[in-house]
Amino acid sequence: MSATIVTLGELMMRLTPPRKLRLRQTSSLDLCHGGAEANVANALANLDLSSRFVTALPYTELGTQALMTLRANRVDTEFVSRLDGRMGLYFMEEGADARSGCVIYDRADTAFSRLSADDIDWDRVFDGADWFHISGITPAISASTLALTQKSIAAAKARGIHVSLDLNYRARLWNYGVDPIDVLPAMVAQVDSLIAGRGDCMPCIGIDGDGENGSDDWASSLSEKLKREFPNLANVAITIRASSSADQHDWKACLRDDSGIVFSREYALKNIVDRVGTGDAFCAGLIYGLLMEPTAQAAVEFGAAANCLKHSIVGDVAIVTASEVRSVAVDGGSGRLRR
Amino acid sequence: MSATIVTLGELMMRLTPPRKLRLRQTSSLDLCHGGAEANVANALANLDLSSRFVTALPYTELGTQALMTLRANRVDTEFVSRLDGRMGLYFMEEGADARSGCVIYDRADTAFSRLSADDIDWDRVFDGADWFHISGITPAISASTLALTQKSIAAAKARGIHVSLDLNYRARLWNYGVDPIDVLPAMVAQVDSLIAGRGDCMPCIGIDGDGENGSDDWASSLSEKLKREFPNLANVAITIRASSSADQHDWKACLRDDSGIVFSREYALKNIVDRVGTGDAFCAGLIYGLLMEPTAQAAVEFGAAANCLKHSIVGDVAIVTASEVRSVAVDGGSGRLRR
Amino acid sequence: MSATIVTLGELMMRLTPPRKLRLRQTSSLDLCHGGAEANVANALANLDLSSRFVTALPYTELGTQALMTLRANRVDTEFVSRLDGRMGLYFMEEGADARSGCVIYDRADTAFSRLSADDIDWDRVFDGADWFHISGITPAISASTLALTQKSIAAAKARGIHVSLDLNYRARLWNYGVDPIDVLPAMVAQVDSLIAGRGDCMPCIGIDGDGENGSDDWASSLSEKLKREFPNLANVAITIRASSSADQHDWKACLRDDSGIVFSREYALKNIVDRVGTGDAFCAGLIYGLLMEPTAQAAVEFGAAANCLKHSIVGDVAIVTASEVRSVAVDGGSGRLRR
Amino acid sequence: MSATIVTLGELMMRLTPPRKLRLRQTSSLDLCHGGAEANVANALANLDLSSRFVTALPYTELGTQALMTLRANRVDTEFVSRLDGRMGLYFMEEGADARSGCVIYDRADTAFSRLSADDIDWDRVFDGADWFHISGITPAISASTLALTQKSIAAAKARGIHVSLDLNYRARLWNYGVDPIDVLPAMVAQVDSLIAGRGDCMPCIGIDGDGENGSDDWASSLSEKLKREFPNLANVAITIRASSSADQHDWKACLRDDSGIVFSREYALKNIVDRVGTGDAFCAGLIYGLLMEPTAQAAVEFGAAANCLKHSIVGDVAIVTASEVRSVAVDGGSGRLRR
Amino acid sequence: MSATIVTLGELMMRLTPPRKLRLRQTSSLDLCHGGAEANVANALANLDLSSRFVTALPYTELGTQALMTLRANRVDTEFVSRLDGRMGLYFMEEGADARSGCVIYDRADTAFSRLSADDIDWDRVFDGADWFHISGITPAISASTLALTQKSIAAAKARGIHVSLDLNYRARLWNYGVDPIDVLPAMVAQVDSLIAGRGDCMPCIGIDGDGENGSDDWASSLSEKLKREFPNLANVAITIRASSSADQHDWKACLRDDSGIVFSREYALKNIVDRVGTGDAFCAGLIYGLLMEPTAQAAVEFGAAANCLKHSIVGDVAIVTASEVRSVAVDGGSGRLRR
Amino acid sequence: MSATIVTLGELMMRLTPPRKLRLRQTSSLDLCHGGAEANVANALANLDLSSRFVTALPYTELGTQALMTLRANRVDTEFVSRLDGRMGLYFMEEGADARSGCVIYDRADTAFSRLSADDIDWDRVFDGADWFHISGITPAISASTLALTQKSIAAAKARGIHVSLDLNYRARLWNYGVDPIDVLPAMVAQVDSLIAGRGDCMPCIGIDGDGENGSDDWASSLSEKLKREFPNLANVAITIRASSSADQHDWKACLRDDSGIVFSREYALKNIVDRVGTGDAFCAGLIYGLLMEPTAQAAVEFGAAANCLKHSIVGDVAIVTASEVRSVAVDGGSGRLRR
Repeated sequence: MSATIVTLGELMMRLTPPRKLRLRQTSSLDLCHGGAEANVANALANLDLSSRFVTALPYTELGTQALMTLRANRVDTEFVSRLDGRMGLYFMEEGADARSGCVIYDRADTAFSRLSADDIDWDRVFDGADWFHISGITPAISASTLALTQKSIAAAKARGIHVSLDLNYRARLWNYGVDPIDVLPAMVAQVDSLIAGRGDCMPCIGIDGDGENGSDDWASSLSEKLKREFPNLANVAITIRASSSADQHDWKACLRDDSGIVFSREYALKNIVDRVGTGDAFCAGLIYGLLMEPTAQAAVEFGAAANCLKHSIVGDVAIVTASEVRSVAVDGGSGRLRR
Repeated sequence: MSATIVTLGELMMRLTPPRKLRLRQTSSLDLCHGGAEANVANALANLDLSSRFVTALPYTELGTQALMTLRANRVDTEFVSRLDGRMGLYFMEEGADARSGCVIYDRADTAFSRLSADDIDWDRVFDGADWFHISGITPAISASTLALTQKSIAAAKARGIHVSLDLNYRARLWNYGVDPIDVLPAMVAQVDSLIAGRGDCMPCIGIDGDGENGSDDWASSLSEKLKREFPNLANVAITIRASSSADQHDWKACLRDDSGIVFSREYALKNIVDRVGTGDAFCAGLIYGLLMEPTAQAAVEFGAAANCLKHSIVGDVAIVTASEVRSVAVDGGSGRLRR
Repeated sequence: MSATIVTLGELMMRLTPPRKLRLRQTSSLDLCHGGAEANVANALANLDLSSRFVTALPYTELGTQALMTLRANRVDTEFVSRLDGRMGLYFMEEGADARSGCVIYDRADTAFSRLSADDIDWDRVFDGADWFHISGITPAISASTLALTQKSIAAAKARGIHVSLDLNYRARLWNYGVDPIDVLPAMVAQVDSLIAGRGDCMPCIGIDGDGENGSDDWASSLSEKLKREFPNLANVAITIRASSSADQHDWKACLRDDSGIVFSREYALKNIVDRVGTGDAFCAGLIYGLLMEPTAQAAVEFGAAANCLKHSIVGDVAIVTASEVRSVAVDGGSGRLRR
Repeated sequence: MSATIVTLGELMMRLTPPRKLRLRQTSSLDLCHGGAEANVANALANLDLSSRFVTALPYTELGTQALMTLRANRVDTEFVSRLDGRMGLYFMEEGADARSGCVIYDRADTAFSRLSADDIDWDRVFDGADWFHISGITPAISASTLALTQKSIAAAKARGIHVSLDLNYRARLWNYGVDPIDVLPAMVAQVDSLIAGRGDCMPCIGIDGDGENGSDDWASSLSEKLKREFPNLANVAITIRASSSADQHDWKACLRDDSGIVFSREYALKNIVDRVGTGDAFCAGLIYGLLMEPTAQAAVEFGAAANCLKHSIVGDVAIVTASEVRSVAVDGGSGRLRR
Repeated sequence: MSATIVTLGELMMRLTPPRKLRLRQTSSLDLCHGGAEANVANALANLDLSSRFVTALPYTELGTQALMTLRANRVDTEFVSRLDGRMGLYFMEEGADARSGCVIYDRADTAFSRLSADDIDWDRVFDGADWFHISGITPAISASTLALTQKSIAAAKARGIHVSLDLNYRARLWNYGVDPIDVLPAMVAQVDSLIAGRGDCMPCIGIDGDGENGSDDWASSLSEKLKREFPNLANVAITIRASSSADQHDWKACLRDDSGIVFSREYALKNIVDRVGTGDAFCAGLIYGLLMEPTAQAAVEFGAAANCLKHSIVGDVAIVTASEVRSVAVDGGSGRLRR
Repeated sequence: MSATIVTLGELMMRLTPPRKLRLRQTSSLDLCHGGAEANVANALANLDLSSRFVTALPYTELGTQALMTLRANRVDTEFVSRLDGRMGLYFMEEGADARSGCVIYDRADTAFSRLSADDIDWDRVFDGADWFHISGITPAISASTLALTQKSIAAAKARGIHVSLDLNYRARLWNYGVDPIDVLPAMVAQVDSLIAGRGDCMPCIGIDGDGENGSDDWASSLSEKLKREFPNLANVAITIRASSSADQHDWKACLRDDSGIVFSREYALKNIVDRVGTGDAFCAGLIYGLLMEPTAQAAVEFGAAANCLKHSIVGDVAIVTASEVRSVAVDGGSGRLRR
């Protein structure tokens, strides 16, 4: 048995100085591709589910190059439009130790921003689909992508598809005159699963948990409030990250459904390779878990293990198999050499 | 004795796949900076003249990084503004043998496009200046940069500065609704020196030479017509490139002034390292030659030798000393190892 | 209108020292994938035809990695089996100037060598197919791959598919006790199109042209003899390469069909980037040409231009679009920078 | 005073993706050479003992390249045969944090597998030798290398040479139909020194220690049982590794001889550079220690310090001098910059 | 309000094997430039103070290359002389985990060693200057640089400039026949601020603190003794580093002035990127702090935060802005990704 | 039958910017080792003769690294002394097309310059030797290396060894107060074989050929004069290089002995990879030829083919086998791919 998941969002070219160089120092940039929803799509395909990605890319070679990465991962690209407009970019200066990393988005006037919900054949997009996943990044880009997100949720719900939303608050976006708190609550009120990190809920929905931020009690209280405020939500997942440096994070997640709340094991990551896309790996793992694993506990453990493994992988995408994830979910990950 | 040259234009980050890879193939990009007028400014500084560059760069680290390259070359950056807007980019897929190279410009809505002539203190910009150099690329970008170019010419002429204009026709620009032929002739009618390549004059001014395109007769006839049509022109330089492949070009130039026309030696380039910026190297060498060399013949030879040498240098900028250029101007360049 | 082409063969990991280093010198190897028939499949997909590849790859990550390159190029990989056995490898020491390049094959006991014709569902493989392409490399590997080749030809012909065979004689293979001349003539007697280079026909079929080897007369005579000996052949293409060094080749091809012989333009390649896979690019271009172009002349020019362009591209695969090929077929390829 | 140590085994080319990339992601592979016994030979030569390596390499450039690495380290290569057959390879995907590393062996039908004990002039191989070291990897490869190992032990013992055996259990080898427990006990019964890691003794000899696996008591009990079961053993060394992630291990060793057991200091490794070959570094250090150091305690500390240092060195080989090892053995290694 | 700081010293080319390779292993070297005082100059310019560097560089391209790095960072290079003599070099083998790093200086007979105080126009050098910084490395090189240092201090004091001296004891220098303790006390007796690390004061001045070396009490006692012995000192800063491995250090500093002693927060660095130049970053930060921050506590925190950040940056130079430093000084540095 | 050749000279670390970057542009340097006589020693070992190299290297890791390259090539390093002093370096800016390459020597006060003839056991050095090769570079370095060269010639001649001298005039050396023409004629008067390039004889011996420099007549006349002036010379080889650019040279050589003069074929090199060490490759090939080939014609062809092949190899050393050289000597080198 397999499952088909549809995601919608922007796929960007990511440009990163090698060897943790600062941007000012570098004479080359490592190139890969990423974007919250595309990362989920790629990860799900690597987990061997059927994954379909809806986006727009420019006609140029930069668009073709991006498209090839989706295909290589076996994502269904039938609904990737080619439009005028720029290729979305982001520059990534990786942090190290006490130094913060920094993202410079360069995604104004992209082909994706010209994608209209009216030009998408939603019947075919959702044909055979079990799940639709979006994130709070798409509505943060522009008025047009906000409308696209809203219409896509409506289209999915009209067809009875389970919809998940990762809030993914990005302070450096949301600069086109709309505040997330004006639009996101209405979206949350429509979807079935919600994923949020520590700093997402207040700016996006105006709800916070009680107790010390990041504590189990806080997460339990926050998820309970969310479920109460949005009874449509079948699941609420809260991710809890504590950074002591760019290289060392503690990470765990919890999942609340109607039967209560379960917590994943906590991962103490000491030598992080690439932190970007780890939240997306959790989303992918959680979706996989909710669809394929027997219990909520197993689902959240699967998501957390996918997140943990992504920290060890260069680039935006969780290139991991389901058996690798399951192995870490079971034993926490020893990192031993297999030979 | 030295001289001070002012240039104005956009400085972009250039992103090039290594090892002549196609864009689709690459997982990294070599990074340098370039732009027609910035290349001239950098080259003139390397030739040990006083070089001042007027531009705008974004506030981000990408802007700072670009600024550092100007400083490293000892260009005076006092008149580099920092503004909102994007960093101009261009992706460069190098050609090889019979395969054409390709530039993908990504320079919409840049900080430079927001630079207004009204915000520039032209008195200080031109303080002590002997020469002002611009190119036909700046007016090709947008209506605002067209206005900037027009006003900069007026400001220079009002202060009695010698102005040179490199037509630099770029078919992929000029897409904001203005045709070069509508605006460039009026500019040409104001400047003192004009530089044009084989395919520039027809689309920009509507004038062509007689005889076989690229022949000496053609160049002579074209430059004569230009001088006749624009009696303000003290000098007209025509560059003649014949490509048999991406790696092999023949190149020469001629210079017409009131006393007649002189031709440079012809260079047969067989193993080109980087073709971009070679026309700018010619401009820089020609300006140097007209300012510092005793004869028109020596001036055009200096420009041609700078152009020749640039073909051997990675990146946009002619990193060559005046003595290196003079040596090639004299013997044509043997490429012998000095030890 | 499009067309569907099926190819069958082995896809190998290619390992090449960077910067033309000799194997003894290198501390890293550039990695790509190639194999004569896979190169044709990838090139056809890049030319926007429907391309299907039949092969076997090992279960390991090395097999998955190879599979991803096919997918990235949009080759249909439904008929790629995963089997026990090694990943085929080849080490490539590139030549330079007078120094010959050298291939070290490491393809014994691969997963592909375990692929049996009996396990392939030929009905589905050839469903909707217009063309089947194979090469003389597959039967050169082992007795089992010889049988696979023979049965695949039979399966194709049984379904009325046009079959092309590129002789591709490799002296370092054919070491399992069979001589090509014992088995290839029978294959040639079944196929519809034959492609052969200068040194292929004598060892494989025992037929040579009259006149100076490599001359037009020789090619005309050879192709005529081949058509006479094998009346089943609708087309015979002969490729003619003259190497003055590893970097400089002259290359042309001719195509004979029932209406006579046509020659492509001759390409004088002076700064070759990568010579491997150029013959496969010709096959892909010729197949495209025979399927999509109006005349035999246009078909052979298309193939020759694809071959010419491949010499400028790193790796085994002709990453070129049909419009790029057509442009070179028309003007011979100036290599001019497009901007 | 120096000493001469002979080792016998396979030297492989190791291919590792750079920057901890997964195999699926990489477009190049870093190349070095390794193999358990070759690592010991190279390390001993770097420690300035006389080191002689017996192996077979293919005739190809791949064999020559491997041979050059032995020579560069000043290993005596007089007894390296050149035979038909493949070059042994292994692909190494390095782990990171919680993600396990993975070795893909590609060593079937190598030149080494064709090396026969009968073709080796054992008198000359062991001329002047003080020590002979082998590992449990060689008998794990094939029936022929099992025989080679058995005969080499006999040849050494017949000449009164001290023989050490590192069990080195590899679950992914031993796939030619022989179980280690069927053959290794008889080998252990002949040698003078035995080295074993935590998971080696049960599958190879069927003996385990009492108490918690990895504890001092367990190691003491295990080594005591081994000495009792195999009274021929002059020394038994047990290595104890605890991995909390791919980057962080705790490591120590103990050594039992007739006068009792001694433990090395424990190393807490927090930022491991390369884990492969660390066990071989211990063997080399222990052999050095047993030959050159005054006490068993000093010997095991020397081996443990060599092991510790190898974790900081890229590649299979412990490139360390005896004074570097001794310094770490004394103070545990501060990693301070010397300037 | 800004400030102008003058520094004097040698700028060297630094050559470092990539990827923590040992020198014996590498086939390339990463190139950057550094030197204690140049590092301070570059860091101060990056902090947006006015920074002027006095040195000599050779006439060769190696000298020009070094000069360009100063210019890129916007250091005033008017007082960089070009002389005969070598370019100073140093080879850097980075340590890892328990393995110590190692510097090989190659700075004999450099252009800098030929720089004479008599050829320097000290009036212009110190025109408008607020501060002069030197280190104990310059007098360690040769008799001539000792004299240069002594005269530069005199010249600064004669003009009423505040002088700081970083002792920077280097055991591998001081090999021209002078012992630091013979010359440094007289220098310390002239300057206004002194910076010293744990192992500097005994060999250079013969003074040690009481209590356990590296403890707060020890630092307090040492700084008190120094202030007592050298009443000219307005400030004494002591830096305290504890290395548990090449990658993990604990670091703090204290600052004593007439009003007492203040300690910075302690940084626990766990994944150090580049340890070289961190002391210079502290000096730059401390100078910045003493000039621009309101309190001694803020000054030492600013210096400590600059030091902390430098550990995360490749190369010798602290490429950090004042706002980045201030942010770490406030919260200790979370390393969180900003996006 | 084999032969033993002794060479003496300095081995340097060579540092070259990658990708033909200028020194000013690079942030890394490729590292290899070279030196005229070491190149000959390495090449002869690769040709499978017995090769012994006499030199001194510093005690540092830089010295060890250099030593390892000799060992890897199987040069006998028994007579490599380790002394105080620097490692000799040279920076190499490669030329391209019309741009000249440039060498910056950094070889003052090296360990080699401290090597005294009196400390060398010449009996053992020349034990079993057939040939001794030196070059005019060693006496160009310093008075001490001049004396070393003179004494080494005397020592060889005293033992009846055939001595060859490659004049190798380097204008940038010879700066210690001695003019080559004062010392080289006396050396030439002692040796048995002389090798000289086009510009070597006039500055070193004051003899020139008649006719156009570089013509066959000129070479014939020059070699005849040399043999007449120095009747001790058994052989005189003249090499003739004509550079049209850094990438394209024509090259040939002639050899005169008592029976007359023979010319090698002329090589037209069009895409040179690395020009350094090509003269040394000729020397090695000529020595091999004179020792192992049947005729003077075959000897000079072998030398010329070795020279030709070296132009295609990165680094200083001709890494070629005798069979590769012989193949090019026969057919001129087609550069065809062998597979």
